[in-house]
Amino acid sequence: MRAALFTGQQSLVVEEREAVPPAAGEVQVEVAYAGICGTDLHILHGAMADRVRLPAVLGHESSGRIAALGEGVEGWREGDLVAVLPLRWCGECAACLAGHTHVCQRLKVIGVDLPGAMQGRWNVPADTLVALPRELPLDHAALVEPTAVAVHDVRTAAVQPGEKAVIVGGGPIGLLIGCVVRAEGGEPVVVELDAHRRAVAERIGLPTIDPAEVDVAAYVEDWTGGGGAPVSFEVSGAEAGMRTATDVLAVRGRCVVVAIHTEPKPVDLNRIFLRELRLFGARVYERQDFEHAVDLVAAGTVPAGELISRIVPITNAGEAFDLLQSGGGVVKVLVDCQAE
Amino acid sequence: MRAALFTGQQSLVVEEREAVPPAAGEVQVEVAYAGICGTDLHILHGAMADRVRLPAVLGHESSGRIAALGEGVEGWREGDLVAVLPLRWCGECAACLAGHTHVCQRLKVIGVDLPGAMQGRWNVPADTLVALPRELPLDHAALVEPTAVAVHDVRTAAVQPGEKAVIVGGGPIGLLIGCVVRAEGGEPVVVELDAHRRAVAERIGLPTIDPAEVDVAAYVEDWTGGGGAPVSFEVSGAEAGMRTATDVLAVRGRCVVVAIHTEPKPVDLNRIFLRELRLFGARVYERQDFEHAVDLVAAGTVPAGELISRIVPITNAGEAFDLLQSGGGVVKVLVDCQAE
Repeated sequence: MRAALFTGQQSLVVEEREAVPPAAGEVQVEVAYAGICGTDLHILHGAMADRVRLPAVLGHESSGRIAALGEGVEGWREGDLVAVLPLRWCGECAACLAGHTHVCQRLKVIGVDLPGAMQGRWNVPADTLVALPRELPLDHAALVEPTAVAVHDVRTAAVQPGEKAVIVGGGPIGLLIGCVVRAEGGEPVVVELDAHRRAVAERIGLPTIDPAEVDVAAYVEDWTGGGGAPVSFEVSGAEAGMRTATDVLAVRGRCVVVAIHTEPKPVDLNRIFLRELRLFGARVYERQDFEHAVDLVAAGTVPAGELISRIVPITNAGEAFDLLQSGGGVVKVLVDCQAE
Repeated sequence: MRAALFTGQQSLVVEEREAVPPAAGEVQVEVAYAGICGTDLHILHGAMADRVRLPAVLGHESSGRIAALGEGVEGWREGDLVAVLPLRWCGECAACLAGHTHVCQRLKVIGVDLPGAMQGRWNVPADTLVALPRELPLDHAALVEPTAVAVHDVRTAAVQPGEKAVIVGGGPIGLLIGCVVRAEGGEPVVVELDAHRRAVAERIGLPTIDPAEVDVAAYVEDWTGGGGAPVSFEVSGAEAGMRTATDVLAVRGRCVVVAIHTEPKPVDLNRIFLRELRLFGARVYERQDFEHAVDLVAAGTVPAGELISRIVPITNAGEAFDLLQSGGGVVKVLVDCQAE
């Protein structure tokens, strides 16, 4: 099997490795596809160096089939199609005891803190598996994990039918949020600077605004008859994006903070006060979000095929990262982990 | 009657005026006491100049008795003791139509946008009145309005019995929030730099922390067994206070933004994301909060007498503002609007 290793210094090395049999309680997954996420790019650039043990196998978005069962694993069979819910929690901290295991105070993410999916054979604890339907193409299934993020974000906002929602940032997560908002009966609009991403959004039926051309707050005021939008999602990670996400909100509006802001950013607390706005942090997902994501991708409610810009063989995994780092022109890039 | 007029240039002028009879739908209140709020100090220093028409009678915290009834006013009698809920809403904007009249998009505050309580006789719309019990001393009753703010803040946080709450800022509103949290069965702690205000807090049974001496986040981590506090209130208006209010929170913790932050302030969005924190803006109050505040002050649950540092005759209203501006040494200062 091959594995793509992050060795530090912003570089990936692909090497041939022997597959290791799964330990007790684990399954061995023959990984079909691994998606590349913004977090993977952050790691490549040196972020989270305190969490990533080198050399590291990245990848927390994946699809595959079970190749072997470790001792004591029940309820699964070789050949089953699966996604992996890549979270490990301690079960002992205050967050876990309160039932919020996905935001465990000592949360480990498989593919960040532990070896990830960018390898031909991947051993994971059996309780991370999520079943995929037979008819779901495995490239589409690689989008289940980011879709679960979007499902969790939209559930955090509690979007109601007919509610308008402003999505600030039209990368993969922003577009997936748009699809999930629409599935809930909401009316999304995506604010995105990049023309290619706007074009992809429009192609899948999501209206867009170019903030370089349009005053977003004025647009939304007009769109909502002067009241402002009840919901926004900050998915840009930019200071200006955070500003937009509060500027567009109605009285009592809800803003979900989805993006990673590594540094504290200025927030318009006066508007939060005057309009009694509500800001919600939303991190990863719970199992119910993941299972709902499987349904949405399988039903085509999330048009996964339209969001996959490129599939790169694992032998050229570095190229997949380069494509994303070069900016515009791609949405989701997958690594084919069985390619020769 | 006398009226204290804000004439601009950071000064107050007290002048003799003729009382005007109440118009139809209004009542004339013989104002007993008017409290001075941080907002009044902001106005004195030139803030909200676009809202305040000079010369302006300030004062939105008040108690008094009905002196005369305008045409068509029913349900009230001369001599009734009253507080005034000093809000006027448009009834037509999206916020009003959604039932959130207290955060009307065109909200006017009586005492800011319209003539306030620092005068001997004050005409107000009858629907602003809130009945006070006969046995409630009118100096204590002047604290009903700020108590209503605290009730609204605590209701916004939905504090549950046994929950620990960190109150960042121990001015009048911070201390009142502490009293209301305690009344709800919560466990408050007040973070305050000023020694006098900490002493007042301790005297009314609210534990305090001096952030100049103690690492507040470490203290709260220890106090909560490592989990963090479920609730915080940002009442300081300071950047460091906002930082503390998020630093102390548990996973899924709720922070209520109470203070006015005139400029955008840096907020630790990464912690909001990682811990799925929730930030709620809270502005003024609804009628239910105001009526609950009457009950809390009347029952002594809010020890109003302990919070009133000084009562100054209206003839020296400027001195009352000076006392507050000089910093430490006072909590709540009232103006006696009938004093000669």
